[in-house]
Amino acid sequence: MDRVVNFSAGPSAMPLEVLMRAQSELVDTNHAGISVLEMSHRSKAFEEILSNTKQLLRKLMNIPENYKILFLQGGASLQFSMIPLNLLQKDHEAAYIITGSWSQKALKEAKKVGQTTVTATSEEDQFRQIPDLSQITHSKNLSYVHITGNNTIEGTRFTHLPKTDAPIINDWSSGILSEEINVSDYGMIYAGAQKNLGPSGVTVVIIRDDLIGHAPDGLPTMLNYETHTKADSLYHTPPTFGIYMIGLMLEWIDSLGGVKEVERRNREKASLLYETIDQSTIFHSPVKKEDRSLMNVPFKTDSVETDRAFLHFAAAKQLVELKGHRSVGGMRASIYNAMPLEHVERLCGAMREFEETMK
Amino acid sequence: MDRVVNFSAGPSAMPLEVLMRAQSELVDTNHAGISVLEMSHRSKAFEEILSNTKQLLRKLMNIPENYKILFLQGGASLQFSMIPLNLLQKDHEAAYIITGSWSQKALKEAKKVGQTTVTATSEEDQFRQIPDLSQITHSKNLSYVHITGNNTIEGTRFTHLPKTDAPIINDWSSGILSEEINVSDYGMIYAGAQKNLGPSGVTVVIIRDDLIGHAPDGLPTMLNYETHTKADSLYHTPPTFGIYMIGLMLEWIDSLGGVKEVERRNREKASLLYETIDQSTIFHSPVKKEDRSLMNVPFKTDSVETDRAFLHFAAAKQLVELKGHRSVGGMRASIYNAMPLEHVERLCGAMREFEETMK
Ligand SMILES: Cc1ncc(COP(=O)(O)O)c(C=O)c1O
Ligand SMILES: Cc1ncc(COP(=O)(O)O)c(C=O)c1O
Ligand SMILES: [Mg+2]
Ligand SMILES: [Mg+2]
Ligand SMILES: [Mg+2]
Ligand SMILES: [Mg+2]
Repeated sequence: MDRVVNFSAGPSAMPLEVLMRAQSELVDTNHAGISVLEMSHRSKAFEEILSNTKQLLRKLMNIPENYKILFLQGGASLQFSMIPLNLLQKDHEAAYIITGSWSQKALKEAKKVGQTTVTATSEEDQFRQIPDLSQITHSKNLSYVHITGNNTIEGTRFTHLPKTDAPIINDWSSGILSEEINVSDYGMIYAGAQKNLGPSGVTVVIIRDDLIGHAPDGLPTMLNYETHTKADSLYHTPPTFGIYMIGLMLEWIDSLGGVKEVERRNREKASLLYETIDQSTIFHSPVKKEDRSLMNVPFKTDSVETDRAFLHFAAAKQLVELKGHRSVGGMRASIYNAMPLEHVERLCGAMREFEETMK
Repeated sequence: MDRVVNFSAGPSAMPLEVLMRAQSELVDTNHAGISVLEMSHRSKAFEEILSNTKQLLRKLMNIPENYKILFLQGGASLQFSMIPLNLLQKDHEAAYIITGSWSQKALKEAKKVGQTTVTATSEEDQFRQIPDLSQITHSKNLSYVHITGNNTIEGTRFTHLPKTDAPIINDWSSGILSEEINVSDYGMIYAGAQKNLGPSGVTVVIIRDDLIGHAPDGLPTMLNYETHTKADSLYHTPPTFGIYMIGLMLEWIDSLGGVKEVERRNREKASLLYETIDQSTIFHSPVKKEDRSLMNVPFKTDSVETDRAFLHFAAAKQLVELKGHRSVGGMRASIYNAMPLEHVERLCGAMREFEETMK
């Protein structure tokens, strides 16, 4: 079958070059005489992959030396528990800024562990914006402030950070490597790989080293960040193929000119799509302009039937996985790093064409 | 580079046919127009992969309908904690039979959760055998009895099960699908995929359904088996590519004639290798004959220097990853399902040739 244009929110489209490179190496990787799928995680061949991947991520995100990089299993969802289990100190609170379903899930897990506080939420506004952060104050005994930097489902993104002395922890699953940020503004950044980084099954954790080593006794060994930092992600068998694929994705980003160039492309793609939506008389964006995500673009018509008709219309043009999340409805186009401008143009073209047929 | 013969204990050799099939489909899988790496876990295309993989495992292992099959993240190592967190009831004990480093690690995590008891151990014997199980008695209020069915490091395997009314839980990471067993003898069987099943990053859990649903409140959602059984391994993003690869491995086993034929091959390979070791005047097996693993075969000479010389000798013949685990020393040949008889013959030939050079 011809290659289709895949707007999935994750696992999501990967660059054809990266897939072809992985394909060409799948039986014999890096001239090792075996596949990366068969490499012992303790072998030189794999340790080289691991260390190169880590170094390249450090370079591309400009990660300071006092931050550790981990490749873990369990998805961002397991981080929702690992974060409070490791970092929520006794007699302290964890603050959550609630901007969508993922932050709600993160909060739910933290509540099982200790004291939490919601310092801002845009729930009353159906999460159509990021709450005003200039107003909020944070108490003194906070272990951390948790944000969802890009809201995959609702299509919003943080452009400012809350003011706080506590470490800010960012679930950046759907934003990582999409734009330049200052890592040292955060105590920890984490991301499931299956959007901008690679296949599902690897979670990248970037954590400031002073936050490690304070977990309570009795915490399961596998849930303690210290276990994995001490062993350099090799305490047990890591998801080796996923780490290898992240390496290929990072090399591809590097070859384009790094995150700066990727951000330029992402802004270009997102502008085009939002303009098309805003200019359209039938499609509209539910999201406040200033807070619109560069990665996940929800849009709707005024009727469920018209939404459905558009989804069919688009699918016939090989534009797939455009259905919005069930909690939001309508359409959602996820346009991660791997999505070329040309594919966004095809979507915009289809939207205009569909609008014509509706006249 | 020419393909080498890879005796790694895991991640380990995969059948060349399986790798070539994965390679041929890597850019366009099952004619979906995208790679399996890019498929949404909620897509029809992926749900078909998931359901086929599960069905085929059920068929090959003859898993009764009252057992659930889960594909989780976190490796067997995370199961060491999930098992007691889910199954160790209040006022009950968990019994562990200690047969090597992996059972010790499993016990260590259970101790953090509740009351444990060691009902048998072969530690005083450096784990060269499985302890005599006919003698042991289990108390009445046991939540489960945990065994390590195949000891990857020490090269032993259970051929009898302890007598108990409590559910037996088997860490079968290095044994799954290597020989026929009766699943209903167990409450739960679990295995990291990276030996007989596929790439690292997926853990298969086969669990009797009456054991599910008794976890204490407050357990992190991701650590509760019920979360994953209710959502059919789709509570969050599963390791999609790993599940796909397991599917290909299972199809390969099926094409050979199923587990019965695979077991016949494994017994043939293991016999050949143990005979070569036993007949050799310089190599010997540390393991008691009746308890020898079909999958992991440790062997030694009388000196560290000769061991090292042999490892070099073998590597020159493209026989790699034969170094024993650091806790045991010497050599270890892991000869999982994917290893053809011919490769074991090459190893045996190299051992005899090396012995000649030593005369
Ligand atoms: C922002 C965000 N957080 C968390 C998750 C959950 O990640 P996972 O499914 O890998 O656990 C997702 C997406 O899937 C996400 O988009
Ligand atoms: C018997 C056994 N149990 C547990 C493990 C740990 O598995 P993982 O590294 O996937 O956590 C292994 C091997 O790696 C093993 O051989
Ligand atoms: Mg969200
Ligand atoms: Mg409009
Ligand atoms: Mg062992
Ligand atoms: Mg001998």
